Parts: sequence; C-alpha cells; structure tokens
Amino acid sequence: MPAVIDESPYPLVLEIGMAKAPKNAISPTRSEDYPEWYQQVIKAADLAEASPVRGCMVIKPWGYALWENMQRALDDKFKATGHQNAYFPLFIPMSYLEKEAEHVEGFAKECAVVTHHRLEPDPEGGLRPAGPLEEPLIVRPTSETIIGATYAKWVQSYRDLPIKINQWANVVRWELRTRMFLRTAEFLWQEGHTVHATSEEAMEETQQMVDVYADFAERWMAMPVIRGYKTPAERFPGAVETLSIEAMMQDRKALQAGTSHFLGQNFSKAQEIQFQDQDGNLQHAWTTSWGVSTRLVGALIMTHSDDDGLVLPPRLAPAQIVILPIYRDDEQRTEVMAYVDSLKQELAAQTMAGQTLRVEVDDRDIRGGEKKWYHVKRGVPIRIEVGPKDIAKNAAFVTRRDTGKSQGMDRAELVASIADMLCDMQKGLYDRALKLREDNTCQIDNEADFRAYFTPKNADNPEPHGGFAHCHFADEQDLEALLKELKVTIRCIPQENNDEPGKCFLTGKPAKHRGVFAKAY
Amino acid sequence: MPAVIDESPYPLVLEIGMAKAPKNAISPTRSEDYPEWYQQVIKAADLAEASPVRGCMVIKPWGYALWENMQRALDDKFKATGHQNAYFPLFIPMSYLEKEAEHVEGFAKECAVVTHHRLEPDPEGGLRPAGPLEEPLIVRPTSETIIGATYAKWVQSYRDLPIKINQWANVVRWELRTRMFLRTAEFLWQEGHTVHATSEEAMEETQQMVDVYADFAERWMAMPVIRGYKTPAERFPGAVETLSIEAMMQDRKALQAGTSHFLGQNFSKAQEIQFQDQDGNLQHAWTTSWGVSTRLVGALIMTHSDDDGLVLPPRLAPAQIVILPIYRDDEQRTEVMAYVDSLKQELAAQTMAGQTLRVEVDDRDIRGGEKKWYHVKRGVPIRIEVGPKDIAKNAAFVTRRDTGKSQGMDRAELVASIADMLCDMQKGLYDRALKLREDNTCQIDNEADFRAYFTPKNADNPEPHGGFAHCHFADEQDLEALLKELKVTIRCIPQENNDEPGKCFLTGKPAKHRGVFAKAY
Repeated sequence: MPAVIDESPYPLVLEIGMAKAPKNAISPTRSEDYPEWYQQVIKAADLAEASPVRGCMVIKPWGYALWENMQRALDDKFKATGHQNAYFPLFIPMSYLEKEAEHVEGFAKECAVVTHHRLEPDPEGGLRPAGPLEEPLIVRPTSETIIGATYAKWVQSYRDLPIKINQWANVVRWELRTRMFLRTAEFLWQEGHTVHATSEEAMEETQQMVDVYADFAERWMAMPVIRGYKTPAERFPGAVETLSIEAMMQDRKALQAGTSHFLGQNFSKAQEIQFQDQDGNLQHAWTTSWGVSTRLVGALIMTHSDDDGLVLPPRLAPAQIVILPIYRDDEQRTEVMAYVDSLKQELAAQTMAGQTLRVEVDDRDIRGGEKKWYHVKRGVPIRIEVGPKDIAKNAAFVTRRDTGKSQGMDRAELVASIADMLCDMQKGLYDRALKLREDNTCQIDNEADFRAYFTPKNADNPEPHGGFAHCHFADEQDLEALLKELKVTIRCIPQENNDEPGKCFLTGKPAKHRGVFAKAY
Repeated sequence: MPAVIDESPYPLVLEIGMAKAPKNAISPTRSEDYPEWYQQVIKAADLAEASPVRGCMVIKPWGYALWENMQRALDDKFKATGHQNAYFPLFIPMSYLEKEAEHVEGFAKECAVVTHHRLEPDPEGGLRPAGPLEEPLIVRPTSETIIGATYAKWVQSYRDLPIKINQWANVVRWELRTRMFLRTAEFLWQEGHTVHATSEEAMEETQQMVDVYADFAERWMAMPVIRGYKTPAERFPGAVETLSIEAMMQDRKALQAGTSHFLGQNFSKAQEIQFQDQDGNLQHAWTTSWGVSTRLVGALIMTHSDDDGLVLPPRLAPAQIVILPIYRDDEQRTEVMAYVDSLKQELAAQTMAGQTLRVEVDDRDIRGGEKKWYHVKRGVPIRIEVGPKDIAKNAAFVTRRDTGKSQGMDRAELVASIADMLCDMQKGLYDRALKLREDNTCQIDNEADFRAYFTPKNADNPEPHGGFAHCHFADEQDLEALLKELKVTIRCIPQENNDEPGKCFLTGKPAKHRGVFAKAY
C-alpha cells in the first residue's frame, strides 16, 4: 500500500540515495520475500539491530519506546487485576531446575551457565575464568523454580493466599536460530506468578490473564487473536493447562503472542509450597504463571506494517503525530515555527482513550523528502506539514500513515477531529487485520483438502497456500507424522464457538471440538 | 522518635505477639546496633529479603513499588534533559573487558562468568554444564564496553552526535560481603551513556547529570547531598573525572548515592568511537556515563527511618495515606465504609507536586493495633482512622508518621490541608536530615584533631566519634596510611563553597581546597 502521492503539494518522492522515482521504501516487499522484508522494516524504522553478542539484540530508542508503551498499558492492567510487581534473582541454582521433571526437560537444554565468579590474567595473554563456583548457576530462562522456592517460605496458612506477583525482567534461552524480537537469546518480558488455595481459583486466574492479554492485543495492538487451550504436546513444560493467544501475521503464519499456564500442584509439590487450610489440614497450593515478551513487538510489526515500513497503532505509537515545518528562510521560519508550536500545544491537549496525545515537531535541517520518509518508515500515524501557504489559509496538510491519504484541513477542524482520526485508524488497523484472518481461515474435514491447503501451489511459490484451518481432531498423536511432513502445528483449541462435535479429519475418530492448524513462528 | 500515643482515642500500643507495652517496633534500636537496626527495618517494612542465591536479594512488593516511584521520577528527568531509553545485551564478551586497562582492573576481578550454554544429565546423577562456549561471556558489571562497541558503529560524522541514551537494567558484581540494597551481587540500576563531539560538551553532560541526581536526592528523597569531585584513587575505573553525590546517614557515615563520569577519550580510543568533524578530520569522541541504583533505597531507609521502622518522604511513598476504617458490626461497617470511600475519593483528587495523591484503604480483618503498626513500620506518611464517633462529628483522626503526632480533624479541613501536610512532611524530613549533617560536620586543620574526630571515645562505643570533616589536603598519597589506619576515606572535593586555599592538615603542603573526609558505606 504505497503512499498516495498525487494529492500532496509536497510530493512524497523517495529521495534516499540517488533514487528519485516514487516506489516503496522497503526492499524486498512483502510479496517478494516476507522474512527479509521483516528484517528491513526493523532496520528502516530503527527499532533494533544485531549486537556483537551472538543471538542478542540491541533495542534502539524507537523500538524501546514502543516496548515502554506496551509495558505501561500491561502494567496498568496487571495492577487493576490486583497484582503487584516484585523482583527475584537473575540466577537459579542448577539443582532447582532438577526438581520438576518436565520443566528440566524443557528448559535445561539450552541455557546460559555461570560456572566462575572471577577473571584472572591468563599466562598466555588476556584473561581467563577463575574462582569456580561450587554449584553452577543458570541465567533464568523463566523463574518458576526460583520464585517458587521463595513462595514456599512465604506461604504457611490459607491467610497468606492468594499471592499475585508480576516481574518485569530479562531472561535467556540459548536459541540456535534467532530472529530479532521473535526469538532472541536474551529477551525482555514480564512473568506473573501466583499461588492460590484452590484449583478453581488458580484456573480463574489463568483465564483472567489470557483475557487481559487478548484485550491488550486487540484494543492496544489492534491485533485480533484467538484464545485457546494448547494441546498436551504444546504446553509449557510442567503445566497442567496452557492457554494462549494466537494471531495471524500477513504471511498467514500464526504467531503465539502470550501464554497463561495453570500449573496445578506440579510446582508446589516440587518446591513444597504448602499451606494450612481453614480446617487445619496441610495442602499443596495451586500455582499459575503467565507472560508476554518483546516478541509482541515482532507481532506488531508483522501484523500492520507495509512495503513502506512500520505502521503503528496510534495507542502504542511513541509519537502519534509529527509536525513537519516547511520554510525557505529565517523570516519564514519564525512565522512557521510560531504557528507550529501553538498547533502542537493544541493537538497535545487532545485525548485518545484518556491519554493526552504524543506530538513531536521535526525541525531538523534535512531535505523535506528524506524527512517525510523517515517518519513514514518509522510508522508515525499522522504527519502534518505546515508551510507559509497553509498558514495563509489557517490550515495544515495532513497525511495518514495507514491509508497514505493526504488532505489539506482547516486548523480548527484538524484539532477538533484529530482524536477521532486516530481512533478511526486504530479501528481500521484492527479491521484490516481481522479481514486478513477471516479471508484466510477455513474449516477442513478431510486429509486431501488439508494437504492441499498447506502445500505450496508450485515450486516457485514457497509460501504456504493456506492460513488457519479449523479441523476436528481427537488425538494429537494420530496427526504427528502428517503435521511434521507439512510443517504444520496445532496452535490451540479455541475457547469460543467451538462446541460442535465432529470426526477427526484424518482418522474419523469422534472429536469434541476443532483445533486451529497453521504454520507458525 | 516513638509515636505519640497519648493523644489517640485508639491507643497505639504495640500488639505484636504477646508484647502489650508501648515500646519501639524495631529491635535493636539505632543507638543499640545501627547495622542490625537497618536489617530489621527492611524486614519490618517488608521491603526485601535474602534469596536462596548467594548475595542476591528478593525485592518484595513494597520495596519494589518504592523503586518504581524512584524510577519514574528519574526517568522523567532524563527525558526532560534530552535522553532516550534503549536496551543493550546482558552479556559482554570477555575480550571486550580487556580493551581498557584500568576498567579491566576495576571490574574483571569479581564477576559472573558464563562458560557453557547447555545442561546435560550427569552420569552420577543430576545435571552438569555442557556445550562450552568458544569465548566466555561476562554478565555485565556495567556496560561501557558493550555499549561503546555499538556506538562505534553508530558514530561516523559529527552529525551523529551527541548520542544521549539511558538504560534501565540489572547488573552483577560478585561482592563478597553483601548488605541488602547497599551492596548486593545483582542489583537494579540505570546507566546513562553519552557521546559528544567536544570535551566541553561531555563535561557539561557529566555536570548536568550529577545535578539531576542531586535534585532528585534533595527534592524527592528529602536527602541532602554534597556534590563533588572524586580524587584519582576513588574514580570510576577508566574515568578522567568522577562526580558524585554524598549523603550522611544517621550513624554519621557517608553514603555515595550516585556518580557521573567524564570518560574523556579513554573508552572511545579503546573502542574506536571516531567521527569526522566539520573540517573532515577524524577524531575520537568524548564519552560520559552515569548511574544510580537500588542502593538509593538503602540510602532512603538510613536517612529517615526511626526506631519504629521505615519513614518515607511523601513524594516517593507507594501509599501516601492509608485510611483505617473502625467498626464493630456489619451495620457500623456499612456506615463507616461509605464515609471512608467518599473520603478516599476526595483525598485522592488532591495533588502534591502535580500528582494526585496515592490513598489506600486497609479494611483487612485484623486487630486494630496490629494494623496500625503494620503501616507505621512500612512508613506510610499519614494514617487516618475513621470510626462511628468521627463520622458523628464529620471528622477523622489523623496521625503523621514523621512526628508521630495525632489529631482529630474536621473532614473539610483535612481535605483542604492534606497536600500542605504532606509538603510540610517532605520539607521536615529534609530539614531534619540537613540538621543532622550540619551538627556532625566540622573543619579540621591538624592531625591530632583529625585522629580524635575519627577515633571512638572508648572501647564500648564502636561508633565513630565524628561525621564529616572538611580538611585541606594536597596529595592523597600522603594521607594513605593515616586514612587506612582510621578507616576513613575522602568522599569528594565539594564543588560549592570550596575555593579558599590552605595547607594540608597532615603535611602542611599548600592545598587549593578542602575534601570531605568520613567513614563510609
């Protein structure tokens, strides 16, 4: 969706390097090479870059500001649902990971292991590790074990329950194949860890938090999601039940954007989290954990961005509006900047969803075309150009990033309608993403259709044919070989509109509900 | 300063366990055993606790909320002075630490070293490290080296400068003797890292940030500080100049609460941060770094708290006001809670320093005395008790945590004066801390007085006699033996009121200025 350039008095011509022709800012485009397009959007929007440390990234200011906005919205939601923040150690003693059998299988395989606590001069030059630790320490891949060990000390009686704590932290999983934001060795996240007296209450918490994530994804990120249960093979290691939110990216692949785990008594038994109930009996508590990470930034990029770069939903954009003053000399500059500054104040006093608008002025001394593309690529929702001609008409020239449409607007009308415009954009992005998902979702009831849906049309087109397939299935083990062959996974068993029984599309066995099948990140 | 108990209709009697007599909540008191009192305040206020991992602590919700308030105020100040947040990797390749000679001396000695990236089953049971790394990774003790390596890629021309970035992160220094908040193996902090085209601009940045820290310490933490230059022996490893803020704790020891470093071209030369200046010449850039950490929480505790527990300056208190409803039965409860809820709304609509007040209601079903002491120990600035008798008078019973004074107040008067009361408290805490420092500061001009000042009066009194001594000195090496003997350090050379020359108190050599000498944390 290239910017509409015809309507602008200041033509939006790509002026990067020597290229002068109107074309897309991102090369390759989505249809040419989706994975490479993703990397190029990150680069063009200046969100992040690879670091000198294998698998770790540097999150640059624009990317970090986006994450901060996500954090603030989520943090408000966690606090509104009765959670408090706290902080637990980065390191986990190796022996802690051994306590929960499935958990160690899931997380001990690839992790950063601290074995020494000092460096000393190496006789052959440089430094070498020294001071070996008695017990190696693991850099947390997730904190169930270390937090559980602490909770075991805190919990004595039913009066100590529930405990509802969240932590904002960095975690490390030694991934072999990394991709910025989607899968990195170190990433930032939040992890909630709660303890309850009953199974019902813990399950309610698990559901509540996946609902919080779904609300955040849909109303802040403008990203429609499907809430559902993970199948046993896809659950968090050690969980009794995992709920997730699943979104469709523009290449029709699924992305798991958040998970909420009902851990039953597995961790409380491994870590001795016990309490005396009202009758004086000693019981193991019921625990949950739930998390979202900087992966959400990757999901946001892939949901909305286009061949000109990043597109941001207004509620999360670090700047919702950028004003670009246009002038030829110092005299014009004085006039234009006075108009721009007062316009900025007026716009910044408007509100969207209860928050005053974030408005920036870009008065850098660089070419106008370069400056405009800078903000196009970074996804600023609204650009407002103001030059002497606009001021003469008491107006401004407004361009929306989502549609690329531009129009001259009367100043008072602009101020009065700016919040509506942003809300319209927020809704428009959601609707567009929902339509993509709906257009690429179907129900499939036999193997032949399933194979055809997930098989590329021809060798030149490596893209999967289909998007999400809703299919009845009874036993995931029956499907293992087929799914592996087609590189398809069961994303989840949706919680909504899914109570119609049927027969497994592969085996014909009776099945209670459909699962969502898709290729996935 | 025990709570004034006589004036209250609901006597503030200590009801912990079986103790019923009015006495201090913290044992030992400050005068009995200051270091142990500090640990007990942390415990009683539920701020933090030791973790199962050596040297690491768990920051509990009340302590973390305090840190969050500090973060928000500091973050606003950083952004207002033109800084942006970003995030860099947790790990630093070992070879990076080798590049700056002084830096490696300072930080390579005690650090967490990652040598493996996997765990595998140990034939003898349990797990063992596997997958040795080609190059060990260090868990960042500070990020000059990894951030500098990234900046080297970002900086090409003078147009790329300045770079002004801050990072909120965890860091690890393998400390042998730890104390909660003051010195822990892992701690939370912010580290600013900036790059400039000129020495002057970098030095201005260094000064600006120590000024930001001083302003935060004095106006938010209500903690008076001395701004000054560190002597060469006390500088950050690799810095050309280190500025610090130094505060006096209630045991008259000094605590360094924040540092801002002018790094000259030391790091830019080690890491090749070069730019083309306006004349086309290649130059090494000038860098700074600056940081404060969760140590500030320790400083806050030791500056204001008393023998009844934590005392919080209102601007940083997670809850500034707690309302305690008092009733005997359900009928009274309905009446009292209606009154309490509307009072809460009215109070929460008031503002202090531009922010609406943080008001909580504690309606837990526990004994009144226990509940009151709970909030005394946690340092909530104002407690408001409301029972049927207060409601009959359209009043409330108000107690200040700083003075312990209680009074019945008319409801309208309470609402109208609450913000002033909090401001008065904020100022009162600052004044009290300043008076302590002034009462325990002197100028000393000879060795005999210096020895007497820093020598305990008798063997039974292990406390240092003196607080801060301002003394002329010429060459810190001349003082080394004496300072070591007395366990005294030069805290800084104050920037203000310090241009009167004199003679070194020990050697008689001409000296340009005085230094602040003190025992220190």
